[in-house]
Amino acid sequence: MIIVMQSRASNAQIEAVEHRILDLGLKPHVSRGEFRTIIGAIGDESLLREEFFAALDGVDSVMPIMKPYKLASRDFHAEDTVISVGGVKVGGKTISVVAGPCSIESEAQLRETALAVRSAGAVLLRGGAFKPRTSPYSFQGLGVEGLKILQAVGREVGLPTVTEIMDVRDLEAVAKYADVLQVGARNMQNFRLLTEIGHLRKPVFLKRGPAATIEEFLMSAEYILAEGNREVILCERGIRGFDHSTRYTLDLSAVPNIQGVCHLPVFVDPSHATGRRELVAPMALAAVAAGAQGIMVEVHPHPDKAMSDGPQQLVPDAFAVMMKEVAMIATAVGRELHKPK
Amino acid sequence: MIIVMQSRASNAQIEAVEHRILDLGLKPHVSRGEFRTIIGAIGDESLLREEFFAALDGVDSVMPIMKPYKLASRDFHAEDTVISVGGVKVGGKTISVVAGPCSIESEAQLRETALAVRSAGAVLLRGGAFKPRTSPYSFQGLGVEGLKILQAVGREVGLPTVTEIMDVRDLEAVAKYADVLQVGARNMQNFRLLTEIGHLRKPVFLKRGPAATIEEFLMSAEYILAEGNREVILCERGIRGFDHSTRYTLDLSAVPNIQGVCHLPVFVDPSHATGRRELVAPMALAAVAAGAQGIMVEVHPHPDKAMSDGPQQLVPDAFAVMMKEVAMIATAVGRELHKPK
Amino acid sequence: MIIVMQSRASNAQIEAVEHRILDLGLKPHVSRGEFRTIIGAIGDESLLREEFFAALDGVDSVMPIMKPYKLASRDFHAEDTVISVGGVKVGGKTISVVAGPCSIESEAQLRETALAVRSAGAVLLRGGAFKPRTSPYSFQGLGVEGLKILQAVGREVGLPTVTEIMDVRDLEAVAKYADVLQVGARNMQNFRLLTEIGHLRKPVFLKRGPAATIEEFLMSAEYILAEGNREVILCERGIRGFDHSTRYTLDLSAVPNIQGVCHLPVFVDPSHATGRRELVAPMALAAVAAGAQGIMVEVHPHPDKAMSDGPQQLVPDAFAVMMKEVAMIATAVGRELHKPK
Amino acid sequence: MIIVMQSRASNAQIEAVEHRILDLGLKPHVSRGEFRTIIGAIGDESLLREEFFAALDGVDSVMPIMKPYKLASRDFHAEDTVISVGGVKVGGKTISVVAGPCSIESEAQLRETALAVRSAGAVLLRGGAFKPRTSPYSFQGLGVEGLKILQAVGREVGLPTVTEIMDVRDLEAVAKYADVLQVGARNMQNFRLLTEIGHLRKPVFLKRGPAATIEEFLMSAEYILAEGNREVILCERGIRGFDHSTRYTLDLSAVPNIQGVCHLPVFVDPSHATGRRELVAPMALAAVAAGAQGIMVEVHPHPDKAMSDGPQQLVPDAFAVMMKEVAMIATAVGRELHKPK
Repeated sequence: MIIVMQSRASNAQIEAVEHRILDLGLKPHVSRGEFRTIIGAIGDESLLREEFFAALDGVDSVMPIMKPYKLASRDFHAEDTVISVGGVKVGGKTISVVAGPCSIESEAQLRETALAVRSAGAVLLRGGAFKPRTSPYSFQGLGVEGLKILQAVGREVGLPTVTEIMDVRDLEAVAKYADVLQVGARNMQNFRLLTEIGHLRKPVFLKRGPAATIEEFLMSAEYILAEGNREVILCERGIRGFDHSTRYTLDLSAVPNIQGVCHLPVFVDPSHATGRRELVAPMALAAVAAGAQGIMVEVHPHPDKAMSDGPQQLVPDAFAVMMKEVAMIATAVGRELHKPK
Repeated sequence: MIIVMQSRASNAQIEAVEHRILDLGLKPHVSRGEFRTIIGAIGDESLLREEFFAALDGVDSVMPIMKPYKLASRDFHAEDTVISVGGVKVGGKTISVVAGPCSIESEAQLRETALAVRSAGAVLLRGGAFKPRTSPYSFQGLGVEGLKILQAVGREVGLPTVTEIMDVRDLEAVAKYADVLQVGARNMQNFRLLTEIGHLRKPVFLKRGPAATIEEFLMSAEYILAEGNREVILCERGIRGFDHSTRYTLDLSAVPNIQGVCHLPVFVDPSHATGRRELVAPMALAAVAAGAQGIMVEVHPHPDKAMSDGPQQLVPDAFAVMMKEVAMIATAVGRELHKPK
Repeated sequence: MIIVMQSRASNAQIEAVEHRILDLGLKPHVSRGEFRTIIGAIGDESLLREEFFAALDGVDSVMPIMKPYKLASRDFHAEDTVISVGGVKVGGKTISVVAGPCSIESEAQLRETALAVRSAGAVLLRGGAFKPRTSPYSFQGLGVEGLKILQAVGREVGLPTVTEIMDVRDLEAVAKYADVLQVGARNMQNFRLLTEIGHLRKPVFLKRGPAATIEEFLMSAEYILAEGNREVILCERGIRGFDHSTRYTLDLSAVPNIQGVCHLPVFVDPSHATGRRELVAPMALAAVAAGAQGIMVEVHPHPDKAMSDGPQQLVPDAFAVMMKEVAMIATAVGRELHKPK
Repeated sequence: MIIVMQSRASNAQIEAVEHRILDLGLKPHVSRGEFRTIIGAIGDESLLREEFFAALDGVDSVMPIMKPYKLASRDFHAEDTVISVGGVKVGGKTISVVAGPCSIESEAQLRETALAVRSAGAVLLRGGAFKPRTSPYSFQGLGVEGLKILQAVGREVGLPTVTEIMDVRDLEAVAKYADVLQVGARNMQNFRLLTEIGHLRKPVFLKRGPAATIEEFLMSAEYILAEGNREVILCERGIRGFDHSTRYTLDLSAVPNIQGVCHLPVFVDPSHATGRRELVAPMALAAVAAGAQGIMVEVHPHPDKAMSDGPQQLVPDAFAVMMKEVAMIATAVGRELHKPK
């Protein structure tokens, strides 16, 4: 960590920084320049926090040298992490497609969707039972009943399942019925939930919050990893932007950006990011071209009757067309889609 | 709600929209213009969601006429809501100052701070026992032990207390020891937590999420109000911006903007918004000048030794100076600070 | 245009809106609902501005029905516009690659780059002679000397050229020496420059400003089109975001989003958007997969010695590798790269 | 400047950075830590650019120590700059109010406004003759005719004048007729315009661009200062945000933030920032409370008939009420409004 002093910092202020570094068990290295004094803290930076120094008098700015995450970093784990989800290998050079309706509305609706997405090449089935809705007056999901439908249909159709967990109190139920626990964008910094999920040994699908920096996103993954659960899949799903012709702004450069520093699989959700059906396929293709290891796409047999997010859900036929293009893009970038079961 | 059809929308598509409106129990009103057909849905718009129409073929855009929140709206409750917190009236024409350390670190630290802020004019004592930290390796708060310290010091000093609740499982404990439950920015859309808090009859201090629109913020308040808890204090604490010389971007126009449509008290937290001690007082004064009904300010007797957020905490002397200026601004805008006890 | 009145709007206020609509030559259509009165203005909305009504007393909000751009719209011109640049057809189903150094530094540097990018498949040569630099102390470009080098090398190598125009006073010179005039992101709303360029009959490469909505971007194109110059190529090059690990946030969904409403060719510049060499190729591939009709990529034989933007410039070998992948992606999405000359 | 090498950087890569530093006339200082090698460049950092190093192989990140602006910095000029505008002292401890219509529409309109704002306490008269409009179909201003009206009315009423310059070709005319040249937000990085204005010896009113960081804003001021014109007034007028219930997001913490590092006067324009009349006065008061040295407010005798920006213009009576409150806030923060002439 490097501490830059103000141009008028006194010797006493400089010494206070040195003492603080010594107190923390590291060695200070003072460099008095023509314009500024700069102090390096030599040793294990993971013992430090910027705020330990930024609050001291005479300090202009503090610059960390090390990344604040460890277990999520390629410095810690150089190779791509590959996670096994009910026999499906996720990560590395294979591209996995998760598909299904926004909300589980009925067993018939989910079965129809599941059969369609499986035959088009999806390898994981999504469906929401607990729905985070902006309005208290909107449909909130079928709850545990939905989880049971998800499990039944997943088994019947032969697809492992992904569903969102919103509340620590539902952890047991969600972990019992689903194969992958999704942490939604709004809960990316629900640290208590992350910690509890870290105690499980079940894959996690962690979505980026709409205002989260890449570093904050990886720190949320670190919360799970630090508790011992090493099976975290990251998902970019759009950040808050100033143009409202799309629901969010899909930050696609996050894919190679994260992959450069982190070994976990990176997925993209073009459905929530754009909120508009006609933009889903182009952005799904772009995601695969950018190097994403998977995509999550919402599919509904009758989007105009969907109980949530109808405008962004694809009909099964459109999904099937998209999947053929996804396969071609995958080949073009030297990757491969899972074979449909 | 107004549905604008695409310029090439077919009659069948227009009729499908009409049927959907009738199905939902409202009356359609079709206006065929030279360039576009526009369909109004006449009746109680609260029965409608934009997505019910946006997913239909031939629809270009959907424009709601009514606000999506009701109980939070001035249409529902025209007068300013005034909330009694342990005898302190919050809201209306009085300005209330909440102060205290970021984290409760010890009884001595909290007592020293509480005495100082009380004598400077604060009427509520803040202090974090459960701390939402970006890093799993940072200090996470003293937990229930911290809550007990908060209650003891609050009673001793004679200040009602505010503390953050992060987890539904802590609800009983936090409600037992504190007078006001704070929902932090990261939990603004933790809908299950909001719902549970709505079941209580205790004041809530709801912070705006860093990526939340005003409307989303009020919808989160609506979650609490809809469950019957009508004592919600709103707090602007900075939104995510592109300039990183401050921690967040304080959106001060949110104060009169919210007050125009909503009857709940609006506070401002300049400490978290700016993250820099020297900006706290100017923004506190600006908040009061803009019409805020209160401010929340972090104060620590030794910020350079604080276990969290040291750079943004004021020392008691600086807080006392600021409070004198706040009082003058309050007078200038025709308001009044609570008298120090 | 639809004018929504406040819930307590008086009859006089409603009538004032009606009179304003009549004054503007349109017909008012008043709909008094249970909760609100809504007034439609029937006729040619291009005669209206939202502000004509938003300033009236009793008005809650104003909703335009028509897009504010006309000539840029697919309603005006349904088919993709294809622009001929020195014999190269730009737009439609073909993918065109513009490449070259950020700044023209010398004839040798530009020739080396031009030969390399041409042999790798680029069809247009870029190079900056007038450089917009954040700092007055940075290299500002070679000026007219640079333009002459650009023309000479372009002719010698057989590639039409693109260069930025920053100042109306340079218009004659830039138009004389270059084949395409680039308007940079910082000048996207330099309306006087847009108007002057509209008087020319030369292709324009218009970059999106970092804070511009899609609509504002198309309105800037409209400035050029309205003066009679119909040869405008649009380019997404990153918007201002909150994560600073990339220079800007590449808004790739802008590509299909714009193509849905506008007939002009849409390009993507992954170099300026990311500012990081290792992210350029993934985002170039993603752009083509998303449907972009071209990309602009910075290439420099010795980026470590470049006088501007070294970190984002590719070496020729890396560019050549990228071009092979771009060709494969193009094929996968049913498009074709121009054949190298 | 500090260069942080990648954890696997080779000795050759480290040496290349050292050589680059020596080539630039500074001294390298290499510190090989346990995890990373860090290289300091000792000497005059103004000779350096981050990009000189960021493009080198093996470099992880580059951290500047010095601010990139010099003449705008308090390190260069510690005291507040006070600028004389036609006898009015702007900056320091006095608060100056600039007021007038968005656009100059006629001599009668401007005179009526000027008399009203003068009597309410404004000391400078604003009015647009060249208007930057998003749409080519909107009113573009009266041009030179408007400038003449501005000069005539300003002289008659006894108020120095401020008007926007959009085009270098208008420089002579604007400088002839107006007392202060305004550079609008959209032209904040029109570097050629800034340079030309730097050659004048006339006060400049420089507005912050909606996507500009504080540092970029000060670099634009530096362009003017570097050419010898030291009379620059800075104005925060709202940045691009994600909540569209206001036109822009007023970044009020920019006021004390800039004042901490820069000696130039800082103004705030609440009219353009909010775009809504009812928010103008609260944000004007907040600006003064935050320490702004002046405000610019739009006033129009008949906003409902204004040719531009009607919704944000105050009527003279509302302006007069606001001015009384501004005076009280000024007193509360130990400042003083100019006495009305």
